[in-house]
Amino acid sequence: MRHKVNLTEKLSSFTDQWSPKIVGELNGQYVKVVKFQGEYVWHHHDDQDELFLALKGGFEIHLPDEIVTLNEGEFFIVPRGLEHKPVAEHEAHALLFEPASTRNTGNVDHVYTIEPESLDRI
Amino acid sequence: MRHKVNLTEKLSSFTDQWSPKIVGELNGQYVKVVKFQGEYVWHHHDDQDELFLALKGGFEIHLPDEIVTLNEGEFFIVPRGLEHKPVAEHEAHALLFEPASTRNTGNVDHVYTIEPESLDRI
Repeated sequence: MRHKVNLTEKLSSFTDQWSPKIVGELNGQYVKVVKFQGEYVWHHHDDQDELFLALKGGFEIHLPDEIVTLNEGEFFIVPRGLEHKPVAEHEAHALLFEPASTRNTGNVDHVYTIEPESLDRI
Repeated sequence: MRHKVNLTEKLSSFTDQWSPKIVGELNGQYVKVVKFQGEYVWHHHDDQDELFLALKGGFEIHLPDEIVTLNEGEFFIVPRGLEHKPVAEHEAHALLFEPASTRNTGNVDHVYTIEPESLDRI
């Protein structure tokens, strides 16, 4: 579908947290937006690198040996296989780039798990 | 290399236009930033979809049958095979997300052409 996407509009169209929404697809990858606050579950993705770009608010990516703090306009790529856990004191909005096959909780089954084929497109 | 990327800092580190710089790599895709003003050359990419996200300033993506106007915080995905030409009245800054194999002028040889293996990493 050929149309432009306004990230602010997309983010204003939902309120649920920890539930990534697909806003674009290219080359087998998804562009997603997500809102979250609090601590996620530790997990990793065996075969997918995952990009987190802070769009609004700041948040942390906890890694086994460091904490990466992202402010608006900053991104971090979590390489495949690396355990990670996003943490946000206040609600944060992020853009994600990752393969369409990526499962949000990776190797972990959790109440937050949404199978890739069940993700909302907005 | 595990480090976060600040897009504003990256964009302040160069001045040349129409010369995309690699700022991230994941899943065989590159994240690039680019500055441009004026009209680019009409071209297409046979096998790569290309995402343009406006980071600063607005610009247009000219397509054969329409003009897509992007303002800050908006993106458009040019599907593979589709002729396109970015146009910016004033200098614009964009983020690109596309396969690592993508040639900036696609099927066209032009003074702006930079082969993928010659792109700067910043």
